[in-house]
Amino acid sequence: MKKIAVFTSGGDAPGMNACIRAVVRTSIFYGLEIYGISYGFDGMIKGGFKRMQSNSVSNIVQRGGTILKSARSEEFMTKEGRQKAYDQLKEHEIEGVVAIGGDGTFTGAKVFFEEFGIPIIGCPGTIDNDIYGTDYTIGFDTAVNTALEAIDKIRDTAAAHDRIFFVEVMGRDSGYIAVECGIGGGAEFVFVPETETDLKKVVKSLKSLRKSKSSSLIVVAEGDEEGTAEYIMEKVKGKLNDADKEFKVTTLGHIQRGGNPTARDRVLASRCGMAAVDGLIAGKSNCMAGVVNGDVIYTPFEDCIGKTKPLKEDHLKLIEILSI
Amino acid sequence: MKKIAVFTSGGDAPGMNACIRAVVRTSIFYGLEIYGISYGFDGMIKGGFKRMQSNSVSNIVQRGGTILKSARSEEFMTKEGRQKAYDQLKEHEIEGVVAIGGDGTFTGAKVFFEEFGIPIIGCPGTIDNDIYGTDYTIGFDTAVNTALEAIDKIRDTAAAHDRIFFVEVMGRDSGYIAVECGIGGGAEFVFVPETETDLKKVVKSLKSLRKSKSSSLIVVAEGDEEGTAEYIMEKVKGKLNDADKEFKVTTLGHIQRGGNPTARDRVLASRCGMAAVDGLIAGKSNCMAGVVNGDVIYTPFEDCIGKTKPLKEDHLKLIEILSI
Amino acid sequence: MKKIAVFTSGGDAPGMNACIRAVVRTSIFYGLEIYGISYGFDGMIKGGFKRMQSNSVSNIVQRGGTILKSARSEEFMTKEGRQKAYDQLKEHEIEGVVAIGGDGTFTGAKVFFEEFGIPIIGCPGTIDNDIYGTDYTIGFDTAVNTALEAIDKIRDTAAAHDRIFFVEVMGRDSGYIAVECGIGGGAEFVFVPETETDLKKVVKSLKSLRKSKSSSLIVVAEGDEEGTAEYIMEKVKGKLNDADKEFKVTTLGHIQRGGNPTARDRVLASRCGMAAVDGLIAGKSNCMAGVVNGDVIYTPFEDCIGKTKPLKEDHLKLIEILSI
Amino acid sequence: MKKIAVFTSGGDAPGMNACIRAVVRTSIFYGLEIYGISYGFDGMIKGGFKRMQSNSVSNIVQRGGTILKSARSEEFMTKEGRQKAYDQLKEHEIEGVVAIGGDGTFTGAKVFFEEFGIPIIGCPGTIDNDIYGTDYTIGFDTAVNTALEAIDKIRDTAAAHDRIFFVEVMGRDSGYIAVECGIGGGAEFVFVPETETDLKKVVKSLKSLRKSKSSSLIVVAEGDEEGTAEYIMEKVKGKLNDADKEFKVTTLGHIQRGGNPTARDRVLASRCGMAAVDGLIAGKSNCMAGVVNGDVIYTPFEDCIGKTKPLKEDHLKLIEILSI
Repeated sequence: MKKIAVFTSGGDAPGMNACIRAVVRTSIFYGLEIYGISYGFDGMIKGGFKRMQSNSVSNIVQRGGTILKSARSEEFMTKEGRQKAYDQLKEHEIEGVVAIGGDGTFTGAKVFFEEFGIPIIGCPGTIDNDIYGTDYTIGFDTAVNTALEAIDKIRDTAAAHDRIFFVEVMGRDSGYIAVECGIGGGAEFVFVPETETDLKKVVKSLKSLRKSKSSSLIVVAEGDEEGTAEYIMEKVKGKLNDADKEFKVTTLGHIQRGGNPTARDRVLASRCGMAAVDGLIAGKSNCMAGVVNGDVIYTPFEDCIGKTKPLKEDHLKLIEILSI
Repeated sequence: MKKIAVFTSGGDAPGMNACIRAVVRTSIFYGLEIYGISYGFDGMIKGGFKRMQSNSVSNIVQRGGTILKSARSEEFMTKEGRQKAYDQLKEHEIEGVVAIGGDGTFTGAKVFFEEFGIPIIGCPGTIDNDIYGTDYTIGFDTAVNTALEAIDKIRDTAAAHDRIFFVEVMGRDSGYIAVECGIGGGAEFVFVPETETDLKKVVKSLKSLRKSKSSSLIVVAEGDEEGTAEYIMEKVKGKLNDADKEFKVTTLGHIQRGGNPTARDRVLASRCGMAAVDGLIAGKSNCMAGVVNGDVIYTPFEDCIGKTKPLKEDHLKLIEILSI
Repeated sequence: MKKIAVFTSGGDAPGMNACIRAVVRTSIFYGLEIYGISYGFDGMIKGGFKRMQSNSVSNIVQRGGTILKSARSEEFMTKEGRQKAYDQLKEHEIEGVVAIGGDGTFTGAKVFFEEFGIPIIGCPGTIDNDIYGTDYTIGFDTAVNTALEAIDKIRDTAAAHDRIFFVEVMGRDSGYIAVECGIGGGAEFVFVPETETDLKKVVKSLKSLRKSKSSSLIVVAEGDEEGTAEYIMEKVKGKLNDADKEFKVTTLGHIQRGGNPTARDRVLASRCGMAAVDGLIAGKSNCMAGVVNGDVIYTPFEDCIGKTKPLKEDHLKLIEILSI
Repeated sequence: MKKIAVFTSGGDAPGMNACIRAVVRTSIFYGLEIYGISYGFDGMIKGGFKRMQSNSVSNIVQRGGTILKSARSEEFMTKEGRQKAYDQLKEHEIEGVVAIGGDGTFTGAKVFFEEFGIPIIGCPGTIDNDIYGTDYTIGFDTAVNTALEAIDKIRDTAAAHDRIFFVEVMGRDSGYIAVECGIGGGAEFVFVPETETDLKKVVKSLKSLRKSKSSSLIVVAEGDEEGTAEYIMEKVKGKLNDADKEFKVTTLGHIQRGGNPTARDRVLASRCGMAAVDGLIAGKSNCMAGVVNGDVIYTPFEDCIGKTKPLKEDHLKLIEILSI
């Protein structure tokens, strides 16, 4: 193996740059030529390849976003698109690819490998932490800390005005961000897609908490089956029937995707990036490099996409106990 | 003068606690008894008075929110309500009052003084910076920095995906927060209530910028006459007619009200708090203690409420020049 | 079991308050009376017990330091001291104790249990991450992020002036903080106590790096066998003999102990606190509640103190590869 | 005027990049060619000129350090050096220069102008805030906030252990950073070069404060006439003679020079940068563009260097009052 390429795809996540840096420098360390592909699969189709040197990735370990840019590609979903992408790789004599992204990226990578046999290894880059095969995804820790800092601020104003605040956090179909923010932010309730929400119970608890607490904070995962934070707030408000209380809702939004990555995300990203190159050199493919129980492991794309990673039981219990 | 009281009212702002601390300790320093009134005018009516000592305000200089809580009072808007409030002050032998809040607070304070003659001095506590008689209000600098940090994060993800991002910031009828965020965040455009927005020009500029810039950021003040960030985005999107670009909108919301105050807000809050007590001792009333051109000055409530503080001309020009 | 107590001891660490909160609320949740002991073992001897309610721990999950204060106790190291402490526990009818601290704390707790049989369970509260029986200690993640943010800032000024910067971080005899900061901060070298430092090799590498890099950053763990950052800098400077380069040293110091805990530390602290109470109720003692591979486990104090937790091999390799 | 150049010199300060950006874009806006000179006066001598475009300064408004690098130049202190520098400017047909830096930079610029008549305008870039002709210097607000955040963290650990903490902050011969940190951080005492420190009084006050306060924080400006924080701590410790108290010292060091600039510094830097170019176009020279009382003004270099900007009287009083 002499030449490999790296790209980022799907929603961007803090730590993607640290991962790119690790891929680039590990490649150079082992004597490989390394190319960066801009705009993910779309760039691959369009031939957006650029030779990278060690200093191409200087001073990016601490930056959010991705210097290789990201995009979603309609064309790659067609056989013709993937053929073009493969032709480009051949033309540039790329013998292996590192794909940094989430389950959409890995789904594409799996099909691509199965059709053309080009070695490809993934790194889990998404804030949602919804990938099987790694305890945490790159960007998750930063997103949680960003959301938590926002919640700390909101708690100031909630407490000053005795308000009940509903805060919507990201995570798509996964409640991980919501749960960690709930525990860390001292939330009274957390609504996640993984569990069914009993609104009646929540309303009853809120009524009982009113005696001891002047303000309350409820964290809602964007993918909750009950609806958006706005919708849930209106429902609770109607049932609580408390004229004295102000109800407010805040949707944290895109700030959760950006920002300098935390230490944990930089280290995880660096480990996964190095492991992806190590894996390609060792002849692995069609799999993702993740960290499970502290160690790097490779998990087939099939499992990364197909299996689910449940929330920790004790996390949900913690929220119940700690909100008393 | 032997006993004075302090309260916070209206929307909370970072630095209110630093201001309370300054009022309390300056009072004690000069041998006055100092009382805290909870929940603003409402608490005054209901007799929520509490004697404060030096250590009542320990370790709060760095905290957001307000330990005295804040609330809006319907009852104080009636003559009967104000009579009750005055009776409570008499009963507690309070001879002077420090009111920390914004123009609603000062409007109430002015009427209250005119009816009952109780000496009352204000401190400008609001993130909106819309008070005449002080260059900056307490909380403004923190709100701008909070918004700016959010914008820095959003820029990461905007750049990674070549997006056009519309970010709505607070400020009610004032464009101060938007303008400083626009300059500091490197925004391409800033929409403020003070100036009429020419959407056609914006669309034309965005088209021309597309050649040189892959992503753009537009800051919208919540009070802009054109509408919300969401509304403006839809309009621009329709006119720009650019299928390749993703348009996104984020409303920063209540995070701008909380958080640890910046150095500037702590110092300003401390100066205003000390000056308010100094002023009461010196026999002043019906005015606000602010900082203009670096010096503490007292401005009649009438002017604080009635006069407007225009945006700096060169600030608006800066945004135009710096976005090229 | 009806009454239990909790204290913090040794150097303070961010997340101790979140841990106290979890201990208090879990106790109340299970119907136990819970007491806080001020100033660690010293307070136990002097009878510094205070009944705690649910709202005793309101609004502390996000605060650094410890509301129960911490101290080192000479007297507890004597049999007489421990007898007094035990008598106090008896007098207050305390039947179980949660000790939040590091190895010094656990050493004392172990002796105390062996002498008097009072059930005692520890929670790993120390920034150093030098405790066997938990993957991470409470406070470590915050300390690393604090140090890393400082290193990010230092890199700005190092790059602006083409300097070689030596940054000393905490960690006592452990290189964990240094290694994570090194990877996350993009350091050229990391000096840790666990490995022998080859200064000649470092000097040789620095000479070679000069061609490609204008500034360099070296992270030194405070416990490194080679000496302090200052000492190492002087040695390297002498050997490098590069008149054009400025050498600077910064010792980050006590900022690493304070600050709002990160999400990770709040969650870890909450889990350990809950687990400690669960453990006492289940009849466990003389052990620490930690989190290993994502799950709560109890490890005998003997192992926590006696066994060492080695640095990850691939972490040290990462630094070598990523600095090229 | 067709071509101008910009450089940064002296110690770097957060906001220098925002200033460079403003200079570059304002120049382009007015149709001027703009060149960046690397490494300050040294780069001018060596011909380190680079044409800059609008996108040369994209995405730097929020970065610490300086993309133009900074250095101190021995050679520029000689007539021969300055002649070389002038020859380079001539060769590149540069007709005006913007110099971003502190008093050393302006001293050089003044001599240079007087000898060769090349129009040159300064922007006040230094964290020390020791320049006459501007209320604040670029970088000062960021440095104060960085130091203050560090002090907030240190307070956590000081309070947890009942310690007396001495924190040394930057500022060279100026006490501005120390004073704002002292007020904002709730310090018990602040030692600044501008006032004589009465150690006896401090010791007496500390003794008296012991009854009401368990921990204390003293901020020491690096330029204090009494000595370093370390030295002062030892002296106070000896005189206080309090075996129960732990005394600790922390020197914040270089973190104060780096980091993302605050909103205030970005706006100030942008205004000064624009004003410098406006000034050159208008035929001004040998002066600095600063902001006084909210407005841009130009002050002769002679005054910037020669006159001193005293600390505010009420700031020093505030610390005395607020520490009770």
